[in-house]
Amino acid sequence: MRGAVLHGPGDVRVEDRADPRIVQPTDAIIRVTAACVCGSDLWPYRGIDQGDGPAPMGHEYVGVVEQTGDQVETIKVGDFVVGSFFASDNTCEICRAGYQSRCVHAELMGAIGTQAEYARIPLADGTLVATPGQPDAGLVPSLLTASDVLGTGWFGAVAAEAGPGRTVAVVGDGAVGLLGVLAARQLGAEHIAVFSRHADRQELAVEFGATDIISERGDQGVAQLKELTGGLGAHSVIEAVGTQESMMQAICSTRPGGHVGYVGVSHDVALPGEELFFSAVHLHGGPAPVRRFLPELIDLIWDRKIDPGRVFDLDLPLEEAAEGYRAMDERRAIKTLLRP
Amino acid sequence: MRGAVLHGPGDVRVEDRADPRIVQPTDAIIRVTAACVCGSDLWPYRGIDQGDGPAPMGHEYVGVVEQTGDQVETIKVGDFVVGSFFASDNTCEICRAGYQSRCVHAELMGAIGTQAEYARIPLADGTLVATPGQPDAGLVPSLLTASDVLGTGWFGAVAAEAGPGRTVAVVGDGAVGLLGVLAARQLGAEHIAVFSRHADRQELAVEFGATDIISERGDQGVAQLKELTGGLGAHSVIEAVGTQESMMQAICSTRPGGHVGYVGVSHDVALPGEELFFSAVHLHGGPAPVRRFLPELIDLIWDRKIDPGRVFDLDLPLEEAAEGYRAMDERRAIKTLLRP
Repeated sequence: MRGAVLHGPGDVRVEDRADPRIVQPTDAIIRVTAACVCGSDLWPYRGIDQGDGPAPMGHEYVGVVEQTGDQVETIKVGDFVVGSFFASDNTCEICRAGYQSRCVHAELMGAIGTQAEYARIPLADGTLVATPGQPDAGLVPSLLTASDVLGTGWFGAVAAEAGPGRTVAVVGDGAVGLLGVLAARQLGAEHIAVFSRHADRQELAVEFGATDIISERGDQGVAQLKELTGGLGAHSVIEAVGTQESMMQAICSTRPGGHVGYVGVSHDVALPGEELFFSAVHLHGGPAPVRRFLPELIDLIWDRKIDPGRVFDLDLPLEEAAEGYRAMDERRAIKTLLRP
Repeated sequence: MRGAVLHGPGDVRVEDRADPRIVQPTDAIIRVTAACVCGSDLWPYRGIDQGDGPAPMGHEYVGVVEQTGDQVETIKVGDFVVGSFFASDNTCEICRAGYQSRCVHAELMGAIGTQAEYARIPLADGTLVATPGQPDAGLVPSLLTASDVLGTGWFGAVAAEAGPGRTVAVVGDGAVGLLGVLAARQLGAEHIAVFSRHADRQELAVEFGATDIISERGDQGVAQLKELTGGLGAHSVIEAVGTQESMMQAICSTRPGGHVGYVGVSHDVALPGEELFFSAVHLHGGPAPVRRFLPELIDLIWDRKIDPGRVFDLDLPLEEAAEGYRAMDERRAIKTLLRP
């Protein structure tokens, strides 16, 4: 089969990879209908995360089940499925508490590489959720977002306890931040301010439900947010970047007793204890337990109540994955969809 | 009046200080019945926190109201009162959300110094809670703990979401940690493990409700706790020290999706973002909003349902404050009560 492989910084190639096969009796093989490039894929692409040797890429996916292992019971051949970027059994104590991304049997789909024609999905019954039927083509991009970027933005909003009566701020105007806006709106937030300097992203943020745009960052951004919130800061702040600056901006933007939901994968972050202590905020985040939210998100998409697929502003054949990465790296695209 | 003053590392003196007087019409003056030495007082005593010049000491107190400002309405002369180590109006939006220690008008009682015969209490109506009557002498130590050390341990347990069905771990066997054990028990926790190497503190921990004692620290302590919890870690961890080692021990002891309640005042802590991210824990803490819990804690003490005053193992006249500090510094005492 064909699949995207990162050979070194800036060097993504679509090449022949071995066809996946059932390894464990709990596996399924899917034919990938659509995959995409994640903001987190840019870390190794930019050489900030160092890999050792060529690595298959991609961890977001929707597709049709081609084959199932002997112990797969609920997922059937022919099902159209969405799964999380972490495979999980969905039965262990951690999964049952809603933290499937930290399942005791968790497997990272990024190591499998879903920017490909086919993918092996471990723990298929736990990992995959079938849609109510075969989706219209127009629903595929939105269903694909549920696999990670929407699920992650949604978790950020849930972790930040966005909800009725709350003022929410979003740090980061990438696809996750933008879908954090959508999530906060769905969860009933009253005001949603997004920190953004890019006109196209501001526009999409407003479409998704943002009520205020703040174009300053750092201390000045925090000061502007405080002006909007009677000097107190937001109740809920979604952090969707993962740098020291963005984490501190999120913490400082939150009122005492408020909630920071952080979903940007941390890079070189060291949180100063004293500042954190006196901030008196709640801090929660990490790799989003997307599986917890999948049934709800699929329903919202299926019923056309949300249209998160709008974050894809570049739609390419898999063979052009290299251009998809370049466009995101150069900020010419918010998010690239890849069609095998 | 007489009061304790820190002149430099290791140099606490009880000396004449100016009698306090009403400054704001919302102030009250109390005659201090009992005060005590806080673990956090040891930071400046040890020279780790540097002060500039002599500083009055103490922020925990119970006493009898001697005088009230013109705008004090609910607190009356003659009331026996308990107050938090932060003065707060208890009416602002932050107070109403339960974060009185970060009240928009918060004042730190430590700057006033309650290890003294009298103390000025700002925002008396918001800060002070009157007991149902004049307490028996035997209740005074327990009521005094509500002012900070019990309220702080309690907040740690609440922030860690200790409750029925939960396994709680407590990092730190000082007075706050021990009262964190008591709080977790009151809140209904199923198992309570405390990290402790000191026989006297282990004994008190068991009396307060600890079910397991772990005498290892760091990675080995975490490993022992994991053994007790099916490899998963505790649901709820109370951090009551404030160092890098104790914070990391707390985070690593918590299962994914679990809660760390951290109440040890942070000193030279820098939390590594990546480790925190993948831990997937909830982190909440800071200066305890003791005022939130005072009515409930006073009731529990008044009705003799809890006996947190047991943490005082040294009871001295105020004039012997220097010995009280020395004994805690040298770990000869868990906590020192001072009687003006």
